[in-house]
Amino acid sequence: MTKAHSPADIETDPQALATASLENLYRIFTVPEAPNSTLGAIDKEISANLMGFLSDRIVARERSLTAIEEDFSGFAIPEVPQFVSDYTDFVMEKLVAHSVHTSAPGFIGHMATPLPSFMLPLSRIMVALNQNLVKIETSKAFTPLERQVLGMLHRLVYAQSDDFYQENLHNARRALGTFCSGGTTANISALWVARNRLLHPKDGFQGLASEGLPAGLKAHGYDRLALVVSERGHYSLGKAADVLGVGRNNVVSVPTDEQSKIDVGLLRETCQKLKDENVGILAIVGIAGATETGQVDPLDQMAGIAQEFGTHFHVDAAWGGPTLLSSTYAHLLNGIEQADSVTIDAHKQLYVPMGAGMVVFKDPQALGAVEHHAEYILRAGSKDLGQYSIEGSRPGMAMLVHAAFHIIGRKGYEILIDQNVDKAKAFARMIDSHPDFELITDPELNILNYRFVPAAIQTQLATADPSLQKAINEVLDRVTQRLQKQQRAAGKTFVSRTRFSMVRYSRQAISVFRVVMANPMTTLETLKSILDEQVALAARPGTKSILEEINTLIKVDSNR
Amino acid sequence: MTKAHSPADIETDPQALATASLENLYRIFTVPEAPNSTLGAIDKEISANLMGFLSDRIVARERSLTAIEEDFSGFAIPEVPQFVSDYTDFVMEKLVAHSVHTSAPGFIGHMATPLPSFMLPLSRIMVALNQNLVKIETSKAFTPLERQVLGMLHRLVYAQSDDFYQENLHNARRALGTFCSGGTTANISALWVARNRLLHPKDGFQGLASEGLPAGLKAHGYDRLALVVSERGHYSLGKAADVLGVGRNNVVSVPTDEQSKIDVGLLRETCQKLKDENVGILAIVGIAGATETGQVDPLDQMAGIAQEFGTHFHVDAAWGGPTLLSSTYAHLLNGIEQADSVTIDAHKQLYVPMGAGMVVFKDPQALGAVEHHAEYILRAGSKDLGQYSIEGSRPGMAMLVHAAFHIIGRKGYEILIDQNVDKAKAFARMIDSHPDFELITDPELNILNYRFVPAAIQTQLATADPSLQKAINEVLDRVTQRLQKQQRAAGKTFVSRTRFSMVRYSRQAISVFRVVMANPMTTLETLKSILDEQVALAARPGTKSILEEINTLIKVDSNR
Repeated sequence: MTKAHSPADIETDPQALATASLENLYRIFTVPEAPNSTLGAIDKEISANLMGFLSDRIVARERSLTAIEEDFSGFAIPEVPQFVSDYTDFVMEKLVAHSVHTSAPGFIGHMATPLPSFMLPLSRIMVALNQNLVKIETSKAFTPLERQVLGMLHRLVYAQSDDFYQENLHNARRALGTFCSGGTTANISALWVARNRLLHPKDGFQGLASEGLPAGLKAHGYDRLALVVSERGHYSLGKAADVLGVGRNNVVSVPTDEQSKIDVGLLRETCQKLKDENVGILAIVGIAGATETGQVDPLDQMAGIAQEFGTHFHVDAAWGGPTLLSSTYAHLLNGIEQADSVTIDAHKQLYVPMGAGMVVFKDPQALGAVEHHAEYILRAGSKDLGQYSIEGSRPGMAMLVHAAFHIIGRKGYEILIDQNVDKAKAFARMIDSHPDFELITDPELNILNYRFVPAAIQTQLATADPSLQKAINEVLDRVTQRLQKQQRAAGKTFVSRTRFSMVRYSRQAISVFRVVMANPMTTLETLKSILDEQVALAARPGTKSILEEINTLIKVDSNR
Repeated sequence: MTKAHSPADIETDPQALATASLENLYRIFTVPEAPNSTLGAIDKEISANLMGFLSDRIVARERSLTAIEEDFSGFAIPEVPQFVSDYTDFVMEKLVAHSVHTSAPGFIGHMATPLPSFMLPLSRIMVALNQNLVKIETSKAFTPLERQVLGMLHRLVYAQSDDFYQENLHNARRALGTFCSGGTTANISALWVARNRLLHPKDGFQGLASEGLPAGLKAHGYDRLALVVSERGHYSLGKAADVLGVGRNNVVSVPTDEQSKIDVGLLRETCQKLKDENVGILAIVGIAGATETGQVDPLDQMAGIAQEFGTHFHVDAAWGGPTLLSSTYAHLLNGIEQADSVTIDAHKQLYVPMGAGMVVFKDPQALGAVEHHAEYILRAGSKDLGQYSIEGSRPGMAMLVHAAFHIIGRKGYEILIDQNVDKAKAFARMIDSHPDFELITDPELNILNYRFVPAAIQTQLATADPSLQKAINEVLDRVTQRLQKQQRAAGKTFVSRTRFSMVRYSRQAISVFRVVMANPMTTLETLKSILDEQVALAARPGTKSILEEINTLIKVDSNR
């Protein structure tokens, strides 16, 4: 506002006068950003070189969160308009610079993927059209497109006949799935359907959707509902249990085996026990690509148990689902075709920008259990997608999935997936052969866990009795936490960390590094440099002195 | 795939070889779309002239949905990659051409707004960064930014002291609100909090979040829960009641008065009756900008009743919330500052692209009722936004709200809002003074309803007895439906239609046109042309012969 303006500025900058007049407001809706304006130039820079933009504009070294918060500490909506150019300067210096370079080859700590270049101009088309997928009147061709994308995903999972898809794809009374903002809402949607179908309408009961959960339990004679999943289940399942009124305590956690897969024997026992206790099993949830370890549950056997107990079988394949596109590794998900519903995120291994989750249902009438209508939209018999979705207004993200399916193709995805899995296996061998690292989970897909444990300590751990193991692991947890934080702060590379119980250590929960292999630009050299950096950080005095404590523990133990 | 390619194509098109090789896949992640490629050219076209792009590229005349579906009827994910240029041609011809021009000045039927030009390049920055707001490790500066945006919105609604915001804005143990994909998830979030707070932990009960709704009712001694809202409540409230396990039948609908506002006397009676029946009132919901009529409930009086019954008071201001930015009209929402929670959509009257809803809570500890954690993210005490949100992974849409707050400013919004309201009032006068239209709701904000009723029939309706009124209205419903469909199909202008009961007609439900005034480019001439078109359509034989039926009804009645 204090900036002096030349007439040229005024012509090129829609907000050049930066005063709130009706004329200026019309300008921001009608006059585009000039290509030579500050924002126009940034726009061109991103278009010309996305990876360069991200590497150059995001500062590597971590700034403290407290310092960043100071730039976002005003709490009044600004009274007067700001120049677009000034705002752009702020965004570049204060926001972009201190964002996270999630597509850097060394950023392998979370389920973030780089974006193919064509996603940027296609996203612009999507944003510019500003369609609202809740109803045909504000989306038109986007509605059949979304139904097609859901149909393609359904076929990938269930491989039904051509007749099936011809009959159901654009049928107003059917829905093969629903689009969501992400995997969490997809899981909630699936369990919402499962809950309503379990407590379905019957004589004198209009169904849970109408009468609610307590009335549903009474009508169906259950004491409560439960949800069964392995201890590696995603946290969204607990959230779903809360939202749906089932309660987090009723998410029954089944222990996993040495490979982090659900123990099928214990699963059957759990279900039998719940049945004996008069508990309605809302769903058994199988995991296809556990968030923490990447493992796939034995879906085939789980499907059998679900059938045995007549319960909904949901598969959370938010991460691992796209593995079905690889003829090499699709078999790892055998049994998924028996699931009643499957969650798959497009913003993960389908390389679509953030905000695209999907859930498909084997039975094209399943979503009828949550169908809803309104007078001004979503009239019964219409093809409005909002009839079945947990969300109302939402953007046309399905377009970007449609684009990726066509431009990358099944074969393209196969290559991407195969090399991610192969790279994870290569990294596992690298870790395993390094004297100072312990491989915690051998990757089945493209996620793995490990930790830094100097060779000498590894030898001691292997033969230590459980109480000494426990004490050593507690010290190692501090090492893992410290190294992970230091590495993140240094900003060159990033691995995440989690904590789970290990059969190997008498089910003690330990802290471990977690890496996710999804960036085609990550090379074996990148991976080697991550280990090298961790070794170097561990050699610093702080970590060394923590490790010393372990020697003391061992000495004390051997003197007993 | 059948296209011949010159070497130039291969250089400019990342997918020019369109075969699935690892090299080609690297290219799509590393080589940008060339500016002279098909997609590059479209990108430039949008950037240079958004409104021109939308007007030129979207075909006006409606194509049948069945015909459009044929272009989206394949159900197999394509096996081989497609050229980006070919895919772009498809998108332009089959998707963009048959989308809805939601920002056309004559498209006044739904809550769609045009986008300010700066939104396009800023959206590109957001998409390019691909941050995930669920946790700081994948969003960094976006997290404080989102907290700031929620704080600004909180202050707009609640106007607490500076000390309050300094203490709470970036406090890891507090949250002033939560960001959602839209108003529906915002409303569900608010009612989720309200439900969990009502059935809070107490002696021997760990709280609803842990133990579930049936156990919560038992512990608190209620027979069931209910949600109270006027008959004009948004359909998302019924969906929320279903999702949350409360049941749609337990959404208690209170009749509205002549002005479509909740009847406060009946609201109190309803609450008293529920209390007497031992029903826990989950929330009273006030409406600030009804979806169908735009009316604002008497929030102040409703807040008093909520307090009297000790119940959560939620205000659904998804549409009307931004009216608070206008010093002229903010007073219409008096009482909103007494709400426990308020939903406001940014993708409506804040002119942000689709996918941005928010809900703020008066009590910064309210969201603690739905707090959740996980080992690898969302650790207790962290500032990860995912601890409080119904969604998990989600994009940095808050950036676009932040941008709009700064570039448009409070004063800019005031101008936009004032002229929308003023335009709605002018349109109401235009309708009212036209002999052949009946104004159904006088606009309080910027939404109104009317219908086509030839002058002679209006006279008859006014004096007809209820049974004749009913018969005439049923015929008029068919006229309204027919005209609305014909006008939409013609593609020049668009009004929507809804159906609700009218005090004026002994609470008979009638079909009406619905218009939403939110596009600064809509002029009084646009509005006049909409009425002219409806008059012309009504003069066609089809509608004329329906109207004839009314004369027969009147004759029969007068002969009795």
